Amino acid sequence: MSQLPSDPTGMHRVLDPVGVLPQVAERLDTRPDLWDDEVRIRVQRLNLDAASFRQLRDEHGSGDAMRSAVLGIIGRRGKMQNPVTGSGGMLVGTVEEVGPRSSLGLAAGDVVATLVSLSLTPLVVEDGLTEWDGRSEQVPCSGYAILFGRSIAARLPGDLPRELSLAVMDVCGAPALTARVVTGYRDPTVCVIGAAGKSGSLACAAARQAGASRVIGVVPAQHEADALGAAELADEVVVADARDPVALSRAVASAGGPADVTVVCVDVPGCEGGALLATAQQGTVVFFSMATSFSAAALGAEGLAADVTMLVGNGYVPGHADYALRLLREVPGVEALFRARLAS
Amino acid sequence: MSQLPSDPTGMHRVLDPVGVLPQVAERLDTRPDLWDDEVRIRVQRLNLDAASFRQLRDEHGSGDAMRSAVLGIIGRRGKMQNPVTGSGGMLVGTVEEVGPRSSLGLAAGDVVATLVSLSLTPLVVEDGLTEWDGRSEQVPCSGYAILFGRSIAARLPGDLPRELSLAVMDVCGAPALTARVVTGYRDPTVCVIGAAGKSGSLACAAARQAGASRVIGVVPAQHEADALGAAELADEVVVADARDPVALSRAVASAGGPADVTVVCVDVPGCEGGALLATAQQGTVVFFSMATSFSAAALGAEGLAADVTMLVGNGYVPGHADYALRLLREVPGVEALFRARLAS
Repeated sequence: MSQLPSDPTGMHRVLDPVGVLPQVAERLDTRPDLWDDEVRIRVQRLNLDAASFRQLRDEHGSGDAMRSAVLGIIGRRGKMQNPVTGSGGMLVGTVEEVGPRSSLGLAAGDVVATLVSLSLTPLVVEDGLTEWDGRSEQVPCSGYAILFGRSIAARLPGDLPRELSLAVMDVCGAPALTARVVTGYRDPTVCVIGAAGKSGSLACAAARQAGASRVIGVVPAQHEADALGAAELADEVVVADARDPVALSRAVASAGGPADVTVVCVDVPGCEGGALLATAQQGTVVFFSMATSFSAAALGAEGLAADVTMLVGNGYVPGHADYALRLLREVPGVEALFRARLAS
Repeated sequence: MSQLPSDPTGMHRVLDPVGVLPQVAERLDTRPDLWDDEVRIRVQRLNLDAASFRQLRDEHGSGDAMRSAVLGIIGRRGKMQNPVTGSGGMLVGTVEEVGPRSSLGLAAGDVVATLVSLSLTPLVVEDGLTEWDGRSEQVPCSGYAILFGRSIAARLPGDLPRELSLAVMDVCGAPALTARVVTGYRDPTVCVIGAAGKSGSLACAAARQAGASRVIGVVPAQHEADALGAAELADEVVVADARDPVALSRAVASAGGPADVTVVCVDVPGCEGGALLATAQQGTVVFFSMATSFSAAALGAEGLAADVTMLVGNGYVPGHADYALRLLREVPGVEALFRARLAS
C-alpha cells in the first residue's frame, strides 16, 4: 500500500504532466498496489469506443498492426486512450482487490463493467492481446486495471448475455441524457441521427418514453432504415448523409421536422452544421459523438443565427446503467437491434 | 437580381465545394447583385480576429506583405477566412441595399457591425487596403459585403465610441447565454473563469443581473484581481491557474464554491477538468472558449462522475448585442474594464 495520499479523481496516479486530471494526462502510474480508496480489476475484455476503433482500423488495418498499435498506446500511456480521437472505451473484468476506504460498493469476485472511460483508467495488458484478431472493437485481454475513489462501475446482470449488457452500458449515458432533455419540452419532435446504432436506438426508445410526440430516426443507408423500421423505435425513418447539411435538414423536414431535440449519435466528423439546421429555434442539440468539433458547433450556430442549446453529451447521469438496461428489457426493438449488431 | 433560389444560410453563394455551409466553404460567390433576402453593406473597416491577425503577422510581418496576404485570401476565397486559424473577424459598414425579402430589419444608411463571422461573409475589397499599414487588426477598407437571410448585424449606437461598441459586440453571446443559464437556478453561486476579460466581465455583470446570489471571479494574476476588484463585478475574486484542476477547485471552494454555474471565458486549452471540479452536482458549465476540447469535456465529466450539464457556448442568442450594450451602460465596472483594455 503506497504511503502517498490519494485523490478521488485519480490525480495521484498522473505521472505526466503532473497536476492534470487522469483523462488529460499523457501517462498514468499503473502500479498494481492500491491506494486505500481504489479497486483493482482483473481485466477480461476491453471495449474500444467506436470512434477510436474506426480511426485505428483506418490507420492500421487489422491483425498484428492493430495489436501493436493498441499495445503501444497502452504501454506508453498506461491507459487506452487513442491519441487522435482522445477517446477510450470501457472494460469488463472481475474485482480482484478492494481498498479499505473504497466507496464503490464492490466486493472481490464481482463481475463488473467500468463506466468511466478507458482514457483515464490505469491499465496493464499481460497477454500481448494474442486472443484478439484486431477486427473487432471487442478485445479479449488479460491484465489489470485500477478504479479510483470517484470512478463508476456496474455489476453485470446475471440474466443477460454479457456482451449484450456491455454493449448497452457502453452507451448508457445517451438514453439517460436524452430522456432528461426531452422531458424539458412539451410533446417535442425528436430527431436521432444514427438511430439504428447502439446509442441511437437507446436514444430513440428513451425519447419516446420521455414524451416525444414524434421520433425521427436518421440513418445513412437503406439496410439500416429497414432494421430500424422493423424495430419500430422511430415514427419516421429517413436515409440521409449527416455530413451534408442540406440533405440532412431536408430529410428531417420531410419527416415532420425541424426537431425540437436533435441527438447526434454518429461517430463521423462534420455533422455539426446539419444537426443545427435540422433543429428548430429554441431547440436543443445533444452531441454524443466524440467526433464533434467544439469550434464547428459554436461558430456554426453563430453563423446560422441558430438559437439552439448545444450540449456536450456527458457520459454520466445518475442511474444511467440501470435505465439503459431497463429500456433493453422493456422495448423489444432495442434488444432486437442490439442482438443483430452483436451477431454481425 | 439573380433568378436562382436563395437559402437563408447563404449556401446559394457557395462555389466550392458545393453543398457545404459558407463557413466551411473554400470559395464564395461575391457578385454584388442581391438575392431578394440579402443585404449589401458598404464596408468601412474590417476587424480581424485576434488569432488570425497574430498568425498573419507572425508569417508576413506588416506593410505590403500583410496587405498582399489579406488581399490574396479575400480574392481567392471571396471571404476573409484565415486558412490556418479558420477564423475571420467582423466588419463595420453602412447598409447600401436591402433585398425586398430581407428580415434583418435594416435600412439603407444604417451603420452596422456584422455579428456573423467574416469567415462566412462574401467580401470584395476595392481599394487594395491602401489605408492599412498592416500593423493593426483594425483594417480600414473600402469595398462591399453581403449578408444572408439568416445573418446577424447590429446597428452601432450613436452615443458610444465605435471601438467600444465593437469590442462589446465581439463577445456579446457570453452575457446573454450566461443570463439565460443563471435564470434557470434559484439564487445560484456563479463562477466566471477569466472574469476580468471582455466576455468574462460581461458574464459577471449578466450573472448578477440574472439573480446570482454570489459571483466568484477567477483571474490568472494579481493585477487582474485588482482591476476586477475595483470594478466591483464579483463578490469574491480569486487568483488561480484555470489549467490546474486542484488549484482552481480549491480556490473556488475557498470563495464559497462549488458553483452552480461555471462560465469558462479563458482562451487557453486544458480548463475543462478544473471547471468541472469547481462545479456542484446538477450544476452547469458553459464553455465560451474556442480552446475547449469536446472530448476532454465529455470524457472528463464521465471520469469524475460529474452530473453536470455542459453547454457549447453559442455565440448567438436573440437580442445579445442590445443586452451586452445595456450591461455596458448600466454597470459602471464593465465600462471601466473595457475602456482600460482599449486604452492599453
